[in-house]
This record gives sequence, C-alpha cells and structure tokens, in this order.
Amino acid sequence: MKNFTFQNTTKLIFGRGTIARLTKELPADVRLMVTFGGGSVKTNGVYDQVMAALKGRDFVEFWGIEPNPKVETLRKAVALGKEKKVDYLLSVGGGSVADGTKLIAASLRSALDPWDIVLDNGKIGEMVPYATVMTLPATGSEMNLNAVISNLATDEKFGMAVPRRPEFSILDPETTFSLPDEQIAYGICDTFVHVAEQYMTTAGQSPLMDRWAEGILLTLVETAPKIRADKRNYDAMADYMLSATMGLNGFIAMGVSQDWATHSIGHELTALHGISHGQTLAIVLPAMMRVLRDQKMSKLLQYGERVWGIVSGTPAERAEAAIDRTEEFFRSLGLATRLSELNVGEATIAEIERRFSSRGVAFGEGRNVDGPKAGEVLRKCLRAN
Amino acid sequence: MKNFTFQNTTKLIFGRGTIARLTKELPADVRLMVTFGGGSVKTNGVYDQVMAALKGRDFVEFWGIEPNPKVETLRKAVALGKEKKVDYLLSVGGGSVADGTKLIAASLRSALDPWDIVLDNGKIGEMVPYATVMTLPATGSEMNLNAVISNLATDEKFGMAVPRRPEFSILDPETTFSLPDEQIAYGICDTFVHVAEQYMTTAGQSPLMDRWAEGILLTLVETAPKIRADKRNYDAMADYMLSATMGLNGFIAMGVSQDWATHSIGHELTALHGISHGQTLAIVLPAMMRVLRDQKMSKLLQYGERVWGIVSGTPAERAEAAIDRTEEFFRSLGLATRLSELNVGEATIAEIERRFSSRGVAFGEGRNVDGPKAGEVLRKCLRAN
Repeated sequence: MKNFTFQNTTKLIFGRGTIARLTKELPADVRLMVTFGGGSVKTNGVYDQVMAALKGRDFVEFWGIEPNPKVETLRKAVALGKEKKVDYLLSVGGGSVADGTKLIAASLRSALDPWDIVLDNGKIGEMVPYATVMTLPATGSEMNLNAVISNLATDEKFGMAVPRRPEFSILDPETTFSLPDEQIAYGICDTFVHVAEQYMTTAGQSPLMDRWAEGILLTLVETAPKIRADKRNYDAMADYMLSATMGLNGFIAMGVSQDWATHSIGHELTALHGISHGQTLAIVLPAMMRVLRDQKMSKLLQYGERVWGIVSGTPAERAEAAIDRTEEFFRSLGLATRLSELNVGEATIAEIERRFSSRGVAFGEGRNVDGPKAGEVLRKCLRAN
Repeated sequence: MKNFTFQNTTKLIFGRGTIARLTKELPADVRLMVTFGGGSVKTNGVYDQVMAALKGRDFVEFWGIEPNPKVETLRKAVALGKEKKVDYLLSVGGGSVADGTKLIAASLRSALDPWDIVLDNGKIGEMVPYATVMTLPATGSEMNLNAVISNLATDEKFGMAVPRRPEFSILDPETTFSLPDEQIAYGICDTFVHVAEQYMTTAGQSPLMDRWAEGILLTLVETAPKIRADKRNYDAMADYMLSATMGLNGFIAMGVSQDWATHSIGHELTALHGISHGQTLAIVLPAMMRVLRDQKMSKLLQYGERVWGIVSGTPAERAEAAIDRTEEFFRSLGLATRLSELNVGEATIAEIERRFSSRGVAFGEGRNVDGPKAGEVLRKCLRAN
C-alpha cells in the first residue's frame, strides 16, 4: 500500500425531504448566491423546496449554468457575485452546476480571469464557502474537490481541482425521479468509469480498496436494471445516488494508484462534438481496456471474476470476456459504445492525437497514453467489428 | 435506505514514516499534553519518533492510561491538564489511550467529574482539540467519536460518544510490528465484530453498505493468516490497520440500522473479569448469532454466501455453517470462543442478567436483548457442546 493522506470534511445529508435542512445548515448573515442550471428544477419541485427553505433570507439567483459548464457563462456569475459582494454559494442542480459553482467560488476573491484559474489551479487563493443540493447523481462533485470546465472559444475542456470542498451537500433521491432516461444512463456509466479509473490499475495495492471499488461496481450492475424498470424505485435510486457520491470522494482511493486516461480522451470528444460526458466514457473505456489488456491483465482477471463471475478460460479469454461484459453493460443502459454510432470518424481521432502530442501530455497509471496511444484506443472503438 | 447525515472531518495520515508529520500537523502555540499508555512505545521506537517530531516544543507528558482505561487514571490526567492550562492533546498508543484522551478532552473545560460525563454525554460542553498517533489497530477510535471507559470502584464499563473527532490521526503500520500476537488477534476480532454490529441486521437496507461491510470482513479473513505467518508483513498489516479504521468511522453505517448487543454483553465480561475486549467478542458474537438466528436469517444467508462461499443446504443449515465458520475464524486467531475456557460460569451470567434487568436496558437492532436474552446468549457459549 502506498502512503496516503485522506480527509473529506463535507457533511452529507441524504434522504427524503432533506432539502428543508437548508434552513438550518446555511449560516445566518451570509450574502448568498444560489446557482442553477436550466429550468428543470422549476418543474420537478426542487426550486419550490429550496425557496421554502430559504424563506426570509436575502439572496441572489444565477441561472443558466449548462451541461459541461462554460467559462463564458461562469464569468457572468463571477461578475454578478462580485457586484453583490456574495460570500457564500449554493449550487442547486447536477454535477455541472456544482462544478461551475466551484470555479465561481474560486474566482470571487481573485482578480484573475476564471480560465486562468482553470489552466493553473495553483493560482487559486481564498475560496468562498459553498454547498450543494445535488439532483443528478454522477460526478461525485458534491463531496470532492474536482470540477470540469469547458471553453467555447477554444473548444477545450479541462479538469481542475479546487482546495475547498462543499461545506455540506443535500441529496434527496426523490429529486431524481423526473430525470430523463438518458441522463440516468450517462450518470450510471460515469459513476462506473470513475470507479474503474481508481481500480483498473496495478493489482494487489490494497485488498480493501479493491473490495470497496468492486462493491460499487456490483451495486451499479445490480441496481441499473431496477432503475431501468422503474426510475421511481426509491431504494434503487438511493443506492445508485450513494454509489455516485462514494465513487469519487476519495473513499476508494486510499493507498492505491489511479488512471484517468479514459476521462482524458472522453473530455476531448465532448469538447470537439458536445457528446455527453457519460456517453464518451461508454465508448472509450472498453477500448482502453482492450488496448492496455496485457498491462492490466491481473486486475482484469480479478475484475472479471469478482464483478462478472468469469472463472473459466485462458487469462486472455477471461480478460476479453470481462471487457465484453463491460461493453454489454453500457449497451444495456441504452448507450452507444462505438464512435461510428455518433458519426465520429478519423478526422476527430487525428485531431485528438494531434492535441495530445502538441501538448506533450501522456495519461494513465503508466503515463503511456500519449497521442499515438490515444489514436490506437479511438480506432479500437471506431466501429463494431 | 434510511435517511442519514454523515460527516467525518478527521485527517487520516497513513503509511511508513508518517509520525514525522506531527511537526507540521500540530498547530504552533498550543499548550500540548501528550498522553501515553504503558512503556511499550519506549521500546518500539515510537516514543523516539514522537520526541523527534516535537523537538523545540514545550509540552507535558501524561503516562499510564491502561487497557480498558479507568476513570480513576483519567481524573489525574484531567487535573494535570487543568493545572498546566493544556489546550491540545496528542494521544500516542492504542485505542485505550485514544479513548481515555477523548474523555480528558471532554473534561478539561468542565467542572464536572469525568464519570458524570461518561454517564451523561449530553453534559459535554466545549472540548479541547486532540489528535492521535495510533499504534494498535482495533477500535477505530482514531477516526470516530466513540470511547469506552471503565470504573474500577463500581466494576462498570460504558461506551460514550463525544461531539468532537480527532483533528488528525497518524497510522504507521510499522509501529504495529512489535505487538504481542494476542493483541493482534484481539484487534482483528474487534474489527470483525465492529463490522458485524453494523451489518448483521435487517437485510436489504443498502446493497452498497452491505458490499463495503463484506469487503472489510473478506479482507480480514484473507489477511489474518498472512499476519499470523509474519507480523512484519507490511502490506498485510497495512490492510488490517486500514480495515480497523474503516470498520468504525461511519463509512459502512450510512442509511442502515445497527446492532451492538454483542458489545454490550462483552463490556460486562470485561468489567467483571478484566477479560480483553476482543476476546469477549469472540465468545459472544457466535452465540448471539445462534440465539438470534431466525431474526437475522436473511442477513446470515447473505453473509454465509458472500464471505464464506456457503451456497448449499437448507437455510437453517447454511446459517449454522456461517456461524460455525465465524467461530472457527476466531479460533484460528488463537482466541477462546467459550466462557468455560476462561473459567467464567453461571454466577457471572446471573450477574449480567441482573445488571441488564435492574438497569432496564435492552440492546440490539430489535431492542430485544434484555437481561433474560443476554443470559440465553451467555449460556449458549458457556462450554463446547
């Protein structure tokens, strides 16, 4: 096991009717800005619950943080927040609103342009405190330091890490009942791949962390069909929602190495084509596993046995079967797993190769997923064989 | 899933050589008291590492917090701390030192006698901050709010909960290499039973929490023989140490009910006979499972299948096999699993029955482990059949 430091201070408030807890969890006497995405919270009852909890408070609303939040939008929120001398933020929505709110929180007391902060997280000084009401389980943003921000002007999308977590996050599974089916599918896939990025690495680093990662994967595999059958199944949605939070809050990352090459390629597909994040991962992960099969053989065999019950065949056959089952699982969610299904072709692959190579970057546990390797991965998922 | 609130703010610093981190983790300008147990830290190098990290600081040492820490000892520490105007505590040792330090931290700014605080945790006001260097994995005290305190004068032992967690806890698996074999066995059993108390309850409350609890149990079952073979096996000891922390820090308790009846009876055996805590649990848990077999049938079957691979036989046979395997596991650690092995007999059973009945208490998920039921459990583990 590697040495590690772990700390996660966010208070997680989970369950039915918990949005009402805002009344007492938000400090008195803060100059609050509430951030939102589009209008779905106005139709699913979340907005009304938040307003009821904030009754008697003075606050500013900022609307319009979009999926894959754009720095162009967030600049406007920062300007409004500075004008109103905001010193506490409340994100109400999914992971994109939470991610955008993190960049706002990191920018309010800074003279820098928000994109400069995205490009160099080391420039973040004091952040204003913030909290979330999370209505779409997927990103784990409600309990971590991560955000992913896009730039319309440059067609770029980058992950960043801020130094301050949400003070608290409220998760009521009932707020997810009205989500469109594809959003749920993207979220389940996103959660699955978050776990895979922390698990599909060198075997034997921590048996306990392996078990916990496998525990989330097994829960997703068992829960997804229940949600597909009835997305108002409270217990199934609660377990998925909890899995999404636990999948990216540091709890399964103690003492083990991580990968994140799949995400790095996925972000490029979103930046270039606007493809939903979870959808990009469903395409890239199986191909990544196939290209790095030999490097990840020990973990693939363990994964195949413990998550999919695959125990017979040669190691190569068992690894292939585990990857096939993964791709089938994503397809069972209704997701595409090949680029050709989304009309993405060789030109995009060449552009991503070029970007990685010109930036001089290489991703993955082994830092070997560079431009040419990314091209190999993308050609592997270009079309069905 | 039940509604829940989760927050655990303790910073966990884990790995080789991490005691040196004290230098920067402890705030400057605090009036520090360092608390210790017996002298083992002076022979295993821990004391020297702590002193090196505290070089240049002014601090008070308090020695002699014993296993099953006694309020009589802790009163002396509180008096010393008040005299020296101590405002920060550092516990160096195992769970007993950490538990005792929690009571000191809860008493330093109080006019009450520490035992009054044990008897009514609601009387705790402001606590002084404290941190731990943990040298014996077992209690999870390094990352939770719990303490168990004994009273020599009354032969009583009670659990308590304080409102403040350790600021940080440092766990270096190498500090455990010199532990006596029986301490390791007690600790593994204690960890196993902590998890069982949060898991062996109504089935189906949270599939994810079930998987995480089973993940710890499986890790203990797989790791214990490696530690028995070589207690200087760093990776095995690291996984056990991490399991002990994760077994009682709230991470596997989200949205599920808990039991704790086994602990309640075990504490009485310690209070009356000084039997080590982990040893009492090895005796009581299998008997508790046998007495409550029908009530816990669904979970026992799941446990048998996922932890022990038991899939054939009638439900009753599978449940019995799972309990038998549990008892065999404790015996494989070198622990007794019957009261007769420790020369405890009917008089003690009658006294524990009397105590539970006279206090009017009943423990367990179903609040049905009262005096007579505790007697039934204890008679079940009186001697081998």
